[in-house]
Amino acid sequence: MRQEVCSAAFLKAVFAEFLATLILVFFGLSSALRWPSALPTILQISLAFGLAIGTMAQALGPVSGGHMNPAITLALLLGNQISLLRAAFYMVAQLVGAIAGAGILYAVAPQDARGNLAVNALSNNTTPGQAVVVEMLLTFQLALCIFSSTDSRRISPVGSPALSIGLSVTLGHLVGIYYTGCSMNPARSLGPAVITKQFSPSHWVFWVGPIMGAALASILYFYLFSPNSLSLSERVAIIRGASEPEEDGEERRKTMELTAQ
Amino acid sequence: MRQEVCSAAFLKAVFAEFLATLILVFFGLSSALRWPSALPTILQISLAFGLAIGTMAQALGPVSGGHMNPAITLALLLGNQISLLRAAFYMVAQLVGAIAGAGILYAVAPQDARGNLAVNALSNNTTPGQAVVVEMLLTFQLALCIFSSTDSRRISPVGSPALSIGLSVTLGHLVGIYYTGCSMNPARSLGPAVITKQFSPSHWVFWVGPIMGAALASILYFYLFSPNSLSLSERVAIIRGASEPEEDGEERRKTMELTAQ
Amino acid sequence: MRQEVCSAAFLKAVFAEFLATLILVFFGLSSALRWPSALPTILQISLAFGLAIGTMAQALGPVSGGHMNPAITLALLLGNQISLLRAAFYMVAQLVGAIAGAGILYAVAPQDARGNLAVNALSNNTTPGQAVVVEMLLTFQLALCIFSSTDSRRISPVGSPALSIGLSVTLGHLVGIYYTGCSMNPARSLGPAVITKQFSPSHWVFWVGPIMGAALASILYFYLFSPNSLSLSERVAIIRGASEPEEDGEERRKTMELTAQ
Amino acid sequence: MRQEVCSAAFLKAVFAEFLATLILVFFGLSSALRWPSALPTILQISLAFGLAIGTMAQALGPVSGGHMNPAITLALLLGNQISLLRAAFYMVAQLVGAIAGAGILYAVAPQDARGNLAVNALSNNTTPGQAVVVEMLLTFQLALCIFSSTDSRRISPVGSPALSIGLSVTLGHLVGIYYTGCSMNPARSLGPAVITKQFSPSHWVFWVGPIMGAALASILYFYLFSPNSLSLSERVAIIRGASEPEEDGEERRKTMELTAQ
Repeated sequence: MRQEVCSAAFLKAVFAEFLATLILVFFGLSSALRWPSALPTILQISLAFGLAIGTMAQALGPVSGGHMNPAITLALLLGNQISLLRAAFYMVAQLVGAIAGAGILYAVAPQDARGNLAVNALSNNTTPGQAVVVEMLLTFQLALCIFSSTDSRRISPVGSPALSIGLSVTLGHLVGIYYTGCSMNPARSLGPAVITKQFSPSHWVFWVGPIMGAALASILYFYLFSPNSLSLSERVAIIRGASEPEEDGEERRKTMELTAQ
Repeated sequence: MRQEVCSAAFLKAVFAEFLATLILVFFGLSSALRWPSALPTILQISLAFGLAIGTMAQALGPVSGGHMNPAITLALLLGNQISLLRAAFYMVAQLVGAIAGAGILYAVAPQDARGNLAVNALSNNTTPGQAVVVEMLLTFQLALCIFSSTDSRRISPVGSPALSIGLSVTLGHLVGIYYTGCSMNPARSLGPAVITKQFSPSHWVFWVGPIMGAALASILYFYLFSPNSLSLSERVAIIRGASEPEEDGEERRKTMELTAQ
Repeated sequence: MRQEVCSAAFLKAVFAEFLATLILVFFGLSSALRWPSALPTILQISLAFGLAIGTMAQALGPVSGGHMNPAITLALLLGNQISLLRAAFYMVAQLVGAIAGAGILYAVAPQDARGNLAVNALSNNTTPGQAVVVEMLLTFQLALCIFSSTDSRRISPVGSPALSIGLSVTLGHLVGIYYTGCSMNPARSLGPAVITKQFSPSHWVFWVGPIMGAALASILYFYLFSPNSLSLSERVAIIRGASEPEEDGEERRKTMELTAQ
Repeated sequence: MRQEVCSAAFLKAVFAEFLATLILVFFGLSSALRWPSALPTILQISLAFGLAIGTMAQALGPVSGGHMNPAITLALLLGNQISLLRAAFYMVAQLVGAIAGAGILYAVAPQDARGNLAVNALSNNTTPGQAVVVEMLLTFQLALCIFSSTDSRRISPVGSPALSIGLSVTLGHLVGIYYTGCSMNPARSLGPAVITKQFSPSHWVFWVGPIMGAALASILYFYLFSPNSLSLSERVAIIRGASEPEEDGEERRKTMELTAQ
């Protein structure tokens, strides 16, 4: 296990998660500020979040899998697709990246546009209970799309996984913005909350909802719809990281990475 | 035939149709509620419906074919692509899924946004006769796109079938919303009608139009443009489900599924 | 030559061009009517035209090549990609299809939305000279995109030709609507002009501009950027239709069709 | 080296860069003029720039790589992907193409819409320092997306590189328009500045920001995330153009072109 952490490929993947989440949060929040010249529309914001995920999944997916979202990483751990250590390092990288992205935005955004940095909050009289269900459904469809689009066993034409995933994020925002500002991603919610120090009483919704939705999708996809036939010891080996590559062998790493997504 | 129904792959496919239609209806209707903070635009609604279909087709297409629409399922039966039993189970799953999706939306939508749950209705002075023709054309182009995009015999580059199908749904909404709120799909129309108990006198339009359009596309595609050369007994075997797999053999199932779309 | 016309594949292709152009014109114009409930935005109209072309190219491209545009068909003849007879039959089918699509729209559109059926006309003080240059540039980029996306010799990843072509049409409309309502396609301009009997003095612009733009793209693409190395007699054989298939052999037809695009 | 410049493939590639940048600048700026009939929205402009890049990358990518941007060309030189001479010729072709595109627009745009031809400028109280950081981030994500999407060593499904790149440009504009009008590309900024003779004091931002962002992406991608294992002499050979093709051998040229992107 120690070997895995020390491998160059592993460290690059963790750095890629940090960088991709930073970019995602910077672009997503930036598109949703209260710009005085022209208030962004819901469609604009939805496309910006979706294209940010799509672009980073296209650019850095081959390096790290392009999770950019602790709920997705946790769900992949639950689905026995990545090691415990990889999941832990990825989640820390994502949270730190999100805070960094929100911090950079705070520095470069004009003061009168900055507002609360598009922090997530319940709106349109949505109750916390309703919000959890909505965030669960938003993340459920995204997670299902990610698992199916990046499944290396898939036989039917997949098109562009990155684009499909990005458009699934846009779909979530087209609906979710009305209820909660649309999180689907605890890192996206944490970043601006840390920087603006605005932790609303319903901040937990943006952790519980996405994690529940992604976990449900993981159970359905990896254990019902598309189960693999690994033995218990093989499953344990994946969690322990023993079946992941220790060396930076380009060819081998990439194949493994894809399998591991 | 009884064997087919009892196979795990068959039951998973029926469940996938239920789930995909639930998600489609929840997201589609949700995007079209009368949100007081900012009324959704026609483009927003059109993209939400299209991306919901596209995302679910990408995620669950490998499991069930991703029909999510009784008109499409009927047309595939007519085109001799699936068994009678599969068609029947799929359609029930779709209708139940649509009602469930509308029901969940009723529960989580803020009361002042809920309205009539975006039930389909004639607008802009459209007559029922005009509406049937329009719904027929809307569904005709969608069905033709589905049949061609998922044809396993296709040689020319197909790109992403899921995205093409989703964008075809968006196209339908960009036009159809003006006439009928855009159904293209009896399940999408039934769901909110059942939950709000609003069956308008023109509710039949959303069954007759889509089914006629999809059926016409099926006849043109499977018997004129791209006919296969099966014998009568082979055709009967497909309808009876005898040429579909009885066991949950992953590899074999997937190949068959694709062929059957 | 007579043999070619009588082949089932040829007649199907001609019918597919008729049908695809009918659908394109019905959806495109329909999206651009003066709907009283909510005036369509330029983006909405641009997407509707683009998605209509994209969806029909995806659905019927394998049957006919999915031209739907006399300027493109002429340019492919000029580029020595199709026979003279195919070009002639396609263009007639496209023009008749466009008139039929506009006619159906006239019948089903509510009277107060119908207006002039979104006929093309110079706007924003554009002069006929400026309009010809603009229509030439609009069609030039579309034609270049079509030729490159459907080139069977292409080695680099092509993605979805249908989607790329559709988005190129959307690009044209995002710009062209301001100058001329955006034609890029003489059939699209003829349809509503015939049905509403409104032939403006600048109607010629929508023939000369698109044909010049597509022809320029054809010369650049097929003779400069990506020339093939056919002998004169082989070239003549293509124009005469002698090297096209006479029988309805599925496999062979599809390969030829692709080569011929 | 002289041989390389004289090769037909090289000259075609340089011409393709000129043409693609001309089209990009014409369509991008045109979509952003102050049209009196209906002021373009930010989403419209963002899509027009993105689709212009996407369409030209799809159409002419196989000829030249489809850079259309001196910052990208410089970054590919820095990443040891193209020769010094190719980089120099491409950049000149791009800058001249951008001026030509802006010039054509000046000629055909109606006078009351023409304005300042959508020249880039700081807005919403953005300072030059903030603007450089923003332009750096905008171009960073684009460059990373380009490098990964066109990497011939990529194993995971790539979808449509042209579309991914185009949507990454759209993402940049959805955010960048608020700060700087969004450059990401010194050629796009130079064109209208030359034609309208409006060189603002912050014009340097549109050179320094994009070049820094693309260079950073190049170093991360080609030396950290996805390094190749060339010897020093092989690297020098690429810079000198000695390992690029001298003859117009279609097959060989295309392979090399792809490798060189």
